Amino acid sequence: MSEAVTKSAISPMRAEDFPEWYQQVVRAADLAESSEVRGCMVIKPWGFGIWENIQKQLNVMFKATGHRNAYFPLFIPLSYMEKEAEHVEGFAKECAVVTHHRLEVGPDGKMRPAPSAKLTEPLVIRPTSETIIGATFSKWIQSYRDLPLLINQWANVVRWEMRPRVFLRTTEFLWQEGHTVHETKEEAEAETLQMLKIYQQFAEEFLAIPNYEGEKTESERFPGAVTTLCIEAMMQDRKAVQSGTSHFLGQNFAKASDIRFLTRNGTQEFGWTTSWGVSTRLVGEIIMVHADDDGAVLPPRIAPSHAVILPIVPKPEHRAAVWQAADKLAAELQQQRYAGEPILVEVDRRDLGGGVKNWEWIKRGIPIRIELGPRDLEKGTVAFSRRDRPVKEKAFLPSSEVVRTLSATLEEIQNNLFTRAKTFRDQHTVRIDSKTDFYDFFTAKNAEEPEIHGGFALAHWSGEPEVEAEIKEDLKVTIRCIPFSAELRGEPGKCPFSGKPSKGRVVFGKAY
Amino acid sequence: MSEAVTKSAISPMRAEDFPEWYQQVVRAADLAESSEVRGCMVIKPWGFGIWENIQKQLNVMFKATGHRNAYFPLFIPLSYMEKEAEHVEGFAKECAVVTHHRLEVGPDGKMRPAPSAKLTEPLVIRPTSETIIGATFSKWIQSYRDLPLLINQWANVVRWEMRPRVFLRTTEFLWQEGHTVHETKEEAEAETLQMLKIYQQFAEEFLAIPNYEGEKTESERFPGAVTTLCIEAMMQDRKAVQSGTSHFLGQNFAKASDIRFLTRNGTQEFGWTTSWGVSTRLVGEIIMVHADDDGAVLPPRIAPSHAVILPIVPKPEHRAAVWQAADKLAAELQQQRYAGEPILVEVDRRDLGGGVKNWEWIKRGIPIRIELGPRDLEKGTVAFSRRDRPVKEKAFLPSSEVVRTLSATLEEIQNNLFTRAKTFRDQHTVRIDSKTDFYDFFTAKNAEEPEIHGGFALAHWSGEPEVEAEIKEDLKVTIRCIPFSAELRGEPGKCPFSGKPSKGRVVFGKAY
Repeated sequence: MSEAVTKSAISPMRAEDFPEWYQQVVRAADLAESSEVRGCMVIKPWGFGIWENIQKQLNVMFKATGHRNAYFPLFIPLSYMEKEAEHVEGFAKECAVVTHHRLEVGPDGKMRPAPSAKLTEPLVIRPTSETIIGATFSKWIQSYRDLPLLINQWANVVRWEMRPRVFLRTTEFLWQEGHTVHETKEEAEAETLQMLKIYQQFAEEFLAIPNYEGEKTESERFPGAVTTLCIEAMMQDRKAVQSGTSHFLGQNFAKASDIRFLTRNGTQEFGWTTSWGVSTRLVGEIIMVHADDDGAVLPPRIAPSHAVILPIVPKPEHRAAVWQAADKLAAELQQQRYAGEPILVEVDRRDLGGGVKNWEWIKRGIPIRIELGPRDLEKGTVAFSRRDRPVKEKAFLPSSEVVRTLSATLEEIQNNLFTRAKTFRDQHTVRIDSKTDFYDFFTAKNAEEPEIHGGFALAHWSGEPEVEAEIKEDLKVTIRCIPFSAELRGEPGKCPFSGKPSKGRVVFGKAY
Repeated sequence: MSEAVTKSAISPMRAEDFPEWYQQVVRAADLAESSEVRGCMVIKPWGFGIWENIQKQLNVMFKATGHRNAYFPLFIPLSYMEKEAEHVEGFAKECAVVTHHRLEVGPDGKMRPAPSAKLTEPLVIRPTSETIIGATFSKWIQSYRDLPLLINQWANVVRWEMRPRVFLRTTEFLWQEGHTVHETKEEAEAETLQMLKIYQQFAEEFLAIPNYEGEKTESERFPGAVTTLCIEAMMQDRKAVQSGTSHFLGQNFAKASDIRFLTRNGTQEFGWTTSWGVSTRLVGEIIMVHADDDGAVLPPRIAPSHAVILPIVPKPEHRAAVWQAADKLAAELQQQRYAGEPILVEVDRRDLGGGVKNWEWIKRGIPIRIELGPRDLEKGTVAFSRRDRPVKEKAFLPSSEVVRTLSATLEEIQNNLFTRAKTFRDQHTVRIDSKTDFYDFFTAKNAEEPEIHGGFALAHWSGEPEVEAEIKEDLKVTIRCIPFSAELRGEPGKCPFSGKPSKGRVVFGKAY
């Protein structure tokens, strides 16, 4: 354990090389790994446990607002991709295409796709399901009585990635995609906003990640959408990640898929549709927002386990008593509840040194570590460590106090992580009013943090796409959102790039 | 509602055309439908709700036995499929093959797979994940300390189907696949059996479906397995469906994937692996076992909702009072618990006739229907109907009694369905000792049930694959399992086909 006195458990540290630090945390925390299939990841049990908790909580929120889960085909006929013009443009370039439905042994003795089993029409692996779900909805919907139709799907999707990055950008990823149809424009717009608010609330309360809510500019919109709403978070390298999006699709997809209904007035009208989603990218975001130079730091409300008990067994004769005490403590803790759910406790009995095990759990980011050895038994205490505090910090507490206070401590950790992330984000969100300052902000270099730019800039923008394009070209900086918050938008002003009038400030940032 | 006096809600009836009846029940119960992608189904919310309950309960059982969920890639490199010789043979013929990773607009203006984006090595969509998971496990496992490794995956898989049948045989389906690695043969065999027992218990207690447990003969084994254990259920047309399988894979896949570990003695050995799975086929099975000529009949422990309240509003002025009473009753019922979970209640307020709504819920198979109109309000009663009783049967009960007894009634329905299915299965499981009787049993026709054969035959078998092959050729009858039950196997005897000695009876049946 002495290594930590001189250096951190993760190398490089955040300040040295953020992208490599991220990869090393994902590895050290045992969350996921690259597979031998290019761009595809294996999500390991600890990482998948986080995703299961995300699914569980979002399911509660989706169902409470009247949505139901369903499942649609993995395959989309190629011709469907051509139905909505902008949509084609947006996805055509990155799809996995199935062309054969059988393998055979070729003349060289190797397996190959059987030439006799070539598909008449190739199938695309869904990059998103608007088209195939639209084709289905057009059969389900006849009249206003069938509306609103509020459906969600949990699924794997594929978008071919040339520069994959585990959780953040992978060829195959897991997500949920909500798809709804409404009688009126107003209802569909309200749904679009409602789902964004659910994402915002979920990110704050469960992931402990603050986000700026707003609308995308035209150039950043989902292909085929009328409006794209988003929530945007700041990582510790001050870059932006889009945490979730909610699209108002107008009647575009309804027209493409022929989703028509009999109105209350007896006329036929196209439905008004929305779609919205979050993905396994959230797991990467949790790391990039909360992890430190010793590994992952998981918000208690989304951690696969809340606490680990590490029995310390200096000599074999101590084993029976220590293990028994560990089991007793685990049982007592499991009877407590945190955030309405049972507290999840692991007892790590592996035949490994106590220091090795302790560091493994530090790197995995479990909120609480409890060490328990023969001397603790005598005193009735345990060594108690919180992952939101420096890793060497230990409190020696009576085990009865640990049982009594664990739930409150978990909530304190949850709140600390949120406050810490929000303070960081707010510190690095700056109002900028001149082009020079703006360019400096996004290229700032100093000795301590040579690779890190300023963060989010709140600057006026005239609404001109040319300005947006030029900034993107020069700095790789984009408008993350036109914020809802009046405080962020501020008063009308002047665009520092074109000199034209601006209705309010927008959030600029470098995105993942 | 008068139609039901003269005929059933589902046409044709089971006795008229069982396969078509099945399709009609799936449709009428709103469980699923065929998609426009050949062989792929859309699982509708009511059907997906059943699958979600299956997932929820199996997750509890898997986790209680130390398994953890993870996720592996959808794509398998073609070369992986060649690693295990028998496995290749078993799956080569039915895989979806990805050959391109981009689309483009061709010279004819239509979309096509971009010739410049042809994959060097084609990718197969997983038909099952032994090979890709094996490649990953070989990296995870170094020493006996890493064992047992107990992993489960919930995923979609694809096996190209020429004759698809919703839920029972679809090109894409959902399933779970468990994959474990153990230090010893004995541990792996014990795991294989443990998981089969979990499936058996789950099918009995949750799906209300009795199964015969046993081992597959060599010809029916999973490709590459040493032993395949299975549970087999009887449908109402007396045909068999394999409800779940658990495979002991020996060291075959460990050798193919190089899963080696340092033993406690310091030597290197190949791991002993297992795999086991159940799929969305179970949803089809629930229908074929329990549904009747009026639609689905869902076991309460797996139904997406337990009860529906149907407010009867003869005149607009009744609406407020009736709806209020319906809400009050729903709230009271939701405070009750059934099988440790809250009781799930729907209030159907749709602007449709009471008869139409009632019949919809009958067809969907919800366990309990509660009608509530203005006259009931005066009397403090409701009209109470159970789906395990004739659909016209109604009990007029004080609503307080409904609240007090609902949980017990649901359990009674659950038990009734199991007993009914078991009685049917036992009645149509017959000991047969002559070849003539056997052939008659599987070709029996009579005026009332022209298409229905005898059911399951318990007959002696010498162990000769030739006998098995001949029977399959003649009758499309296979050995469903060599049963574990000593009672089913009986005393040693003589094979009625070859005349050779037999150690015990096996279960013959026609399989889906």
